[in-house]
Amino acid sequence: MISEKMMPLLRNNSAIRMMFEEGNRLAALYGRENVYDFSLGNPSVPAPPEVNQAIRDVLEEEDTLLVHGYMSNSGYEDVRQAIAQSLNDRFGTGFGARNLIMTVGAASALNIILKAVLNPDDEVLTFAPYFVEYGNYVRNYDGKLVVVPADTETFQPNLAVFRSMINKRTKAVIINTPNNPTGVIYSGETIRSLATILEEKQKEFGTEILLISDEPYRELAYDGIEVPYVTKFYANSVVCYSYSKSLSLPGERIGYVVIPDEVSESRELIAAAAIANRVIGSVNAPSLIQRVIKRCLNAKVNVEAYDRNRSALYDGLTNLGFECVRPQGAFYMWVKSPVEDEKEFCDVCREHHILVVPGSSFACGGYVRIAYCVSYDMIERSMPAFAKVAERYGLNK
Amino acid sequence: MISEKMMPLLRNNSAIRMMFEEGNRLAALYGRENVYDFSLGNPSVPAPPEVNQAIRDVLEEEDTLLVHGYMSNSGYEDVRQAIAQSLNDRFGTGFGARNLIMTVGAASALNIILKAVLNPDDEVLTFAPYFVEYGNYVRNYDGKLVVVPADTETFQPNLAVFRSMINKRTKAVIINTPNNPTGVIYSGETIRSLATILEEKQKEFGTEILLISDEPYRELAYDGIEVPYVTKFYANSVVCYSYSKSLSLPGERIGYVVIPDEVSESRELIAAAAIANRVIGSVNAPSLIQRVIKRCLNAKVNVEAYDRNRSALYDGLTNLGFECVRPQGAFYMWVKSPVEDEKEFCDVCREHHILVVPGSSFACGGYVRIAYCVSYDMIERSMPAFAKVAERYGLNK
Repeated sequence: MISEKMMPLLRNNSAIRMMFEEGNRLAALYGRENVYDFSLGNPSVPAPPEVNQAIRDVLEEEDTLLVHGYMSNSGYEDVRQAIAQSLNDRFGTGFGARNLIMTVGAASALNIILKAVLNPDDEVLTFAPYFVEYGNYVRNYDGKLVVVPADTETFQPNLAVFRSMINKRTKAVIINTPNNPTGVIYSGETIRSLATILEEKQKEFGTEILLISDEPYRELAYDGIEVPYVTKFYANSVVCYSYSKSLSLPGERIGYVVIPDEVSESRELIAAAAIANRVIGSVNAPSLIQRVIKRCLNAKVNVEAYDRNRSALYDGLTNLGFECVRPQGAFYMWVKSPVEDEKEFCDVCREHHILVVPGSSFACGGYVRIAYCVSYDMIERSMPAFAKVAERYGLNK
Repeated sequence: MISEKMMPLLRNNSAIRMMFEEGNRLAALYGRENVYDFSLGNPSVPAPPEVNQAIRDVLEEEDTLLVHGYMSNSGYEDVRQAIAQSLNDRFGTGFGARNLIMTVGAASALNIILKAVLNPDDEVLTFAPYFVEYGNYVRNYDGKLVVVPADTETFQPNLAVFRSMINKRTKAVIINTPNNPTGVIYSGETIRSLATILEEKQKEFGTEILLISDEPYRELAYDGIEVPYVTKFYANSVVCYSYSKSLSLPGERIGYVVIPDEVSESRELIAAAAIANRVIGSVNAPSLIQRVIKRCLNAKVNVEAYDRNRSALYDGLTNLGFECVRPQGAFYMWVKSPVEDEKEFCDVCREHHILVVPGSSFACGGYVRIAYCVSYDMIERSMPAFAKVAERYGLNK
């Protein structure tokens, strides 16, 4: 009954599921308060109050048929115009409503762009460690995800190796900044170098290479660090955005893709992406929440709460002797495993009721991801358990 | 830049777009009130008041983190359980939460099922006239949509021809009842015969053939006609449902797929469909609206309004001499073109500011679709224009 393409996904799924169930199993055995589940990237900070107020206001002030009705597959024009204006104000870009397509989250944004451009066996490059769904998205369109190994010094993209891996089949590059799982933000210098390489390779091969920036964590940046806006660095850029983290609305499936006029064949790509939105079955981004977004362009989640978690966890773990990449954004900490096989480290953590994700799940073994979108209280409570793990490995001497 | 698979879709899209823009062009020239646009299947009846009340109640009574948060890719378990119970009460089925996956409308439901089962070159049968997106959905997974020609006497499925077209590559059959574009409801007898044929052919070829029932119009049935529930007739059945029409929420993208335990390898198929929901980029059905659905299981749109439109249009057009299939459900009337080439008929209608969709858009030339999800007033105002068209063809003598 099941298609051949789905079979490996089915097998892999049981592993993810087991991990999820492990949290529940431990909680049942030892009590929820004695389990430290750092495995999920699910926002712990609620949506800002403007969101629910905007929902009430939309219901009060707008026509029900419009609020719940069909619109263009690209989304409501006034919503897209308002977002474009907001981006222009923030980043000095020149977008109009025509450049935006509202999507069912960033996951759909990535899918419609990949569907619009990929031919079978086209290559898509990305940088380890990376969000493994990229591989599934690319395979949806029979493309091939090619992974540039990590620069484990900085966890900025390894550009020298990247350059050598581009060939005439390279159709796109996916970057994710602020990064899941490392928390690193790609600097302006990095983006500029990356753009230079892409321009050079486009010329060399006479091809168009699309830079796809996956940015669900854009608004979660700390210490005043700026997240460069890629479309200003490289013409063939598109941005996939989501409100899942910036407004804590992951369940609502709301985001957009920006396709600037500067992209090669931009009118056709915009049309193709809108058709793809229809054809993959999304049809359009959910309507009420689109109307809400228009009213919440200046709303912000409580980023300070994540920042506080970040400091507590970073200070706590480094004091215990763990080697951590200091996160600049998102809500993940990337921690070096004290032993080469990080799965063994994960097992030891689990013995102390700490759940973390092995780096091999992001194609980068030897590290683990700790998601700190949790309660501050849980971070504090987890420290004695982490101390025991550190002791086990002789770290805190 | 654009993938080869998207190119025909891009070309075709301009035709749809031109049609859409024709309504605006005519309205600008002659005034909106003098244009009779029957081309779109967009509900004209607003969502019942229970929906907006439920939204307010959910915001008031439920935890914001839960309401807007991630849940299982299958949807909230309590929502699925409530829908399963409601189906069991109505149809005497035995579903549990495990048998349902909440989806981004019926379009996503169809996509995740097709992704879960189709291998390249698998055939999917459907009956003309049919919703042309089926072809795109099937091609998403490199399957081949094979169309059974219409029985133009009854517009019930042509089962004799259907039987002859099933072969060992036949993986699935899509039916749509109440039907877009004909308004016909498949009788219990029809479904029973169809099931018998499928069982016989499964045995003959030693294959599993999945019957996919696409049911966004289930609740729009007139004259007390029952819409049979297919899972009671044939074990390998799944039902793709949407609240787009039943609660007038087309923009919200909310529906589900039911995969009964009786389906071959049902556990694997349920798991594969949930993974497909994630991997095609939907991830999950929008969260707030899921929670609203749980509170609106007994809410109903004003079907009487559509029924009144149906009678006015049917009586009006048949009195003018047009030959119409009397619709039993949905909000479409299927009208025989007075000339063989129905596109010529559409052109003549357009000269009188009437917009209808040619049957060739549903793989069934010689007919046109008139969507009567419009204001009653517009139907009344359009009658003199239809009278002129009838006169042109010498119908009303």
